Amino acid sequence: MTKLRVRIFTISIDGYGAGPEQSPDNPLGVGGRTLHPWLVATRTFQQMHGGEGGTTGADNDFAARGFVNVGAWIMGRNMFGPVRGPWPDETWKGWWGENPPYHNPVFVLTHHARPSITMEGGTVFHFVTEGINAALARATEAAKGQDVQIAGGVETIRQYLRAALIDEMQLAISPVLLGSGEHLFSGIDTLKLGYQCTEHVGTANATHIVLTKRG
Amino acid sequence: MTKLRVRIFTISIDGYGAGPEQSPDNPLGVGGRTLHPWLVATRTFQQMHGGEGGTTGADNDFAARGFVNVGAWIMGRNMFGPVRGPWPDETWKGWWGENPPYHNPVFVLTHHARPSITMEGGTVFHFVTEGINAALARATEAAKGQDVQIAGGVETIRQYLRAALIDEMQLAISPVLLGSGEHLFSGIDTLKLGYQCTEHVGTANATHIVLTKRG
Repeated sequence: MTKLRVRIFTISIDGYGAGPEQSPDNPLGVGGRTLHPWLVATRTFQQMHGGEGGTTGADNDFAARGFVNVGAWIMGRNMFGPVRGPWPDETWKGWWGENPPYHNPVFVLTHHARPSITMEGGTVFHFVTEGINAALARATEAAKGQDVQIAGGVETIRQYLRAALIDEMQLAISPVLLGSGEHLFSGIDTLKLGYQCTEHVGTANATHIVLTKRG
Repeated sequence: MTKLRVRIFTISIDGYGAGPEQSPDNPLGVGGRTLHPWLVATRTFQQMHGGEGGTTGADNDFAARGFVNVGAWIMGRNMFGPVRGPWPDETWKGWWGENPPYHNPVFVLTHHARPSITMEGGTVFHFVTEGINAALARATEAAKGQDVQIAGGVETIRQYLRAALIDEMQLAISPVLLGSGEHLFSGIDTLKLGYQCTEHVGTANATHIVLTKRG
């Protein structure tokens, strides 16, 4: 059974998944980079970026789980890039260079149609204008029995969460404050929607939690 | 120097310090009791309530720090009890019986004057109708060089936090969702107010963080 899941997504102590004022220089908003030292330090991240070494404990376990059994991805258009409104041309192909770390079809939610882009390493960006249910249906088909993972950003996760379509969320809480930006849970009653915390591991760098929707 | 501090205050993963619908049966709101298993399990808590045993690791260290060097307390009227509006009589003396765990003057913020109440064990409840600054001035004087601690609830902490009067907040994040209730940080830009995370310890039961205001 294909699950819709969120993994390797980090929020601050005060609940923000991105800082304010996202821009080409600050893809995660002002202060957003302070969320991810736990992840950057892991062996999983270092190996993906051609580095060596890295942490091998619970931080790394949770990072590695983010790349297991994923058959397709969903992301919001604001995560795909800083361009807003109609696409001015076809030059923007994401933040990740010629070989993005997805290695599977990625369904990008947008109001503005655009032809699919085939990247190196198996990543193909498809642009979906018919909304979150259509994107999930297409991603589920493309995943061929593996899971569909929402890469982000915050607003995309919130849309699927409000619709109670997410089966599992694996979050890290970093020991930082962001103060403002995009809040993950604000105004969403996760308890009423059927979620509960089913796993909880604290490390020196972060607190890892898994929220699971009751069946 | 007297510091204004918050300690032994617990929030959920989604940031709530109390559940909805506070009542005599649910002083912490619906679901609020699920915040505190980490605390109840500690040796500090067990000894305060005449029990034996209890955890002795980081959970207990953080619990114990909540009772060190406190010379006076501040609490909101809704934490003092479920009575709302003018006091109907003098019978309500708090949730804690004849010998409350404060053992020092406690300044209760309220819009409705009432004579002070002397309890056993050193706790004296004073009722302050002149607002948060007046309560802090009186508590600071009463603390005689020791710290003033805000016992809660959420709204009282938020008032002092918005005014950037809190020097240090020691919070626990429990691995539970509350979904709704009283949110501690919502709409408060702690970063802009000058706070940063200066300590972070994860245990099997909770994540302990210390937020400190830059001097």
